Formats: sequence, C-alpha cells, structure tokens
Amino acid sequence: KWTVGIDIGSVSTKAVLFNGEQVDSKIIPTGWSPSQAGQEVLERLLKPQGLTRDDISLLVGTGYGRIQQGMFDKTFSEITCHARGVHYLLPEACGLIDIGGQDSKVIGFGEKGKVEDFVLNDKCAAGTGRFLQVTAQTLGLEVSQLSALAEDADPADINSMCAVFAESEIIGLLAQGITVESIVAGLLKSIAKRISVMAGKIHFQDTVAFCGGVAQNQVLKDLLSQEIGCRLAVPPCPQAVGALGAAILGYEL
Amino acid sequence: KWTVGIDIGSVSTKAVLFNGEQVDSKIIPTGWSPSQAGQEVLERLLKPQGLTRDDISLLVGTGYGRIQQGMFDKTFSEITCHARGVHYLLPEACGLIDIGGQDSKVIGFGEKGKVEDFVLNDKCAAGTGRFLQVTAQTLGLEVSQLSALAEDADPADINSMCAVFAESEIIGLLAQGITVESIVAGLLKSIAKRISVMAGKIHFQDTVAFCGGVAQNQVLKDLLSQEIGCRLAVPPCPQAVGALGAAILGYEL
Ligand code: SF4
Repeated sequence: KWTVGIDIGSVSTKAVLFNGEQVDSKIIPTGWSPSQAGQEVLERLLKPQGLTRDDISLLVGTGYGRIQQGMFDKTFSEITCHARGVHYLLPEACGLIDIGGQDSKVIGFGEKGKVEDFVLNDKCAAGTGRFLQVTAQTLGLEVSQLSALAEDADPADINSMCAVFAESEIIGLLAQGITVESIVAGLLKSIAKRISVMAGKIHFQDTVAFCGGVAQNQVLKDLLSQEIGCRLAVPPCPQAVGALGAAILGYEL
Repeated sequence: KWTVGIDIGSVSTKAVLFNGEQVDSKIIPTGWSPSQAGQEVLERLLKPQGLTRDDISLLVGTGYGRIQQGMFDKTFSEITCHARGVHYLLPEACGLIDIGGQDSKVIGFGEKGKVEDFVLNDKCAAGTGRFLQVTAQTLGLEVSQLSALAEDADPADINSMCAVFAESEIIGLLAQGITVESIVAGLLKSIAKRISVMAGKIHFQDTVAFCGGVAQNQVLKDLLSQEIGCRLAVPPCPQAVGALGAAILGYEL
C-alpha cells in the first residue's frame, strides 16, 4: 500500500512517498502555479520508483496550495500534517516550531502527538523565512550563507521588528562600519526573539522539533533554543515534515 | 520675536519660522545625519530672511531626530507639536491623521486642541508612507504618481496586510494581467483601511486634519474620508505641521 503526501507551500512544494515508512521525498519551487507544482512534484516522486498515479491508494494534500486542486483524494490542514509528521519522526517531541518561507507556526502537543494548541503567523513577514530572505538580499547574500557567517560574530542590535524597517536599519549599520557578520548574527537573534514570543504562548517542556527550511540554520537553532529554554531537535528533511504527515494520515485512513 | 520649529523626521526634516504667524518653511531630506539635517535646514530657513541664530528667541525641536541634539533650546514630542500646529491652522478640527514616511499617528483633540487620545504606529511599515514607497518601487513608480494613476481605476483586491507580502502579491497580480492603475487603487484602498482601523480607536466627530506628505494624495484622502466617515481637511503645507507646532509652542513660552 502506497500513499503520497504533497505540501504545496507558498515558496516550495514538497512530496513524500510512504508505504509504512518514508520511501522517498522531493522538493521543488512552487512558482506561479500551485497546481502545476503539485502535478510536477508527484511525477518526479513516482517516476524513479516505477510507480504511476494508479499505484497510489491515497493522494493527500496540505499547505496553502492544497485548496481548489482537483488532484487530491483528501486534504488536511498544515497544522494537522506537521504534528503527525513530527510525532512520527520524533515521538519524544512535545511540540514543534516551523519557520516556513511565508509563515511560521508553533504547535504544542497533547498525548500521542495530538495538537493541543497552536500559534500561526502568516500576516507579518517578520518572524518568517521571508524576513531572512529580504534582509539577506539587502546584504547581497543567500539565506544559505547566513549561518556560517554569523557563527563567531557578536550580534549587532537590530531594533526594527519590521522586515521593511530592518532593511533600512541594516543599511544604516553598514554605513556605520558594523561588519556583515555582526549584522547577520543580529538578524538571526532578532528572528529568534520574535519566534520565542510566539512560542511563549505554548507550554513547552522538553524537546521541541524545529522544522521548515530555516531549521537548517545551526546558529538560529542555537539562538532559538536559548531564547525558549528548550532543546530543539531538527528532524531529517525538516522541510518535508508536513508532506510526510499528510502521507501518514492517508496511510492510516 | 522670532521662533523656529524643526521637525527632524526619519525621511525629511522640516523647519518653520514664526513671529506670530508662519513666515517661511523649508523641507530637506534627513539623510544619514539628523544633526546635520537640523543645522542645514535652519541655515536655509534663516539666510533668505537675513536672520541669524542669535535673532531666534527660541529654537524648538521635535521628531525622532530631536533626541541627542545639542542645538535645541527646548523639545516637544511629535504628538504635542502636531496637535498644536493643526489647532492653529484648522481650529475646527477635532483631531488629526498624520501618515509620515516611517510612522503614522491618529490624535483626538479635547477642548482647545488639547491632546485627548492618540494612536501611534512606528513598528510596522504597512500603514505608513513606507508602504506606498515600497510598493510604488515594485511597480517602477514614484509615490507622487500614485494618485493620478488611481483616479478612475477599479481597485484590485490586495489581501496582504504586510508591506513585504504585498510586494509579492503585486507581482502576482501583474502576472495575472491586472492593470497597474487597478493595483495602485487597491494599494491606496488597503492603506486607507489600515489607517481607518487605527482611527477607529479615536472618537472623531466632524472635521479631521490630514497631515504628512501622503496627505497630498487626493485619492487616498477620499478613500480615507469614506472609510472613517469624516470630512478630512488638508492644512497648507501638510508636511510641516509638526515644525509649525514646535515654533508656536516656543513662541507661547
Ligand atoms: S511589521 Fe513589517 S513585516 Fe510585519 S506586517 Fe508590518 S510591514 Fe510586514
């Protein structure tokens, strides 16, 4: 029995093939057409396995792009799918923090990984991966370079909570001769602070899963762990946790 | 007796010369150095009048850049100065809305133009002139072009409240073939809505003064007037109202 979970996000589309365990996963950019991205990621997932759509018992959609797609047998919210994926990968986690390209969420689990409480931000770019993307761009950097740059740097004070105002602040700091390394460390610290404010509304005890593309940023992980006072564990393939959860939920139906 | 009010804002620095009435005003960009901008605008204000610093009984500062400047005899908050300036120019106004380059404020007056209540936003670029600047830039336009473009257009739906997310939304709308005119009208409508949410916290009755550089945008003025259900009156030189208020407060001391 095969199931596929597809998480169509605003930035990237993730797919996971599941048959009692995760067989493969694929990530592609969403681009302008969520439905095209959904079809394409499915093809890229199935082809190398010699499978076709007919071999899949249940195709499950999640993510903002799941809506108005005729392709899915079933859909679940991102919250439900992320929680299921994390509980499968890290059964010890008492919740999760997901910093996505255009939103961020903090979920607290009850018993057996059931969603007990959550906080979602999709209204303000600050506190999402978008903040890092916009500010990295101002510095002429890629998001993937930020962690290494910030590693040994003394974080500069970034006072603007707003992504737009932070851009101007960065330009001002550069003009004052503050190093790029310090500015990057300051940016990571400022996003860690914002996420910890969201996380403060959830009662975390011990291990919290850290998901989303931004979870690959080691310095941010450490800063966030300090801010919220919990151990953070990054699951394998932290971007595809929602897609995995969708596939598992389909498998369990 | 001569007094000067200088309002050092994040974007522009305004100065007014007062001797019982407004004699002259000057506006220059603040640039990187608020103190330099303060000195320069003062010189540009006094020179054509054949005055020097010694002729000025009181030099009053306001605006975010007033802090840590040795140049002022006295400083007042922007709220106090804006209220005083508006009450002088438009005694019938029951309050004011100021959309500045980097903040926005709504002030409700009690008797004799005294500040009774106010709401300030300097944390989020959406709902400030910065929103228009950032989005105009995305469209390859100047802020000064927006009103004329939007005049007869059917406003497009702009769903993002965030300036950063609105940028991506605009790019998506352009890709869908929505006209620039409709998008601009949609942007003005969306900022009018945000300001009206702020204004909703103040009890306005009749005429409200509309200040700040953005007040020159006629379409925004009309949209905002509709949203809050009050008549809006734009004072002469709407950007320099705070500087005028500072000069008057100095004159009255
Ligand atoms: S604070 Fe900045 S990033 Fe957040 S909603 Fe406002 S404009 Fe967007």
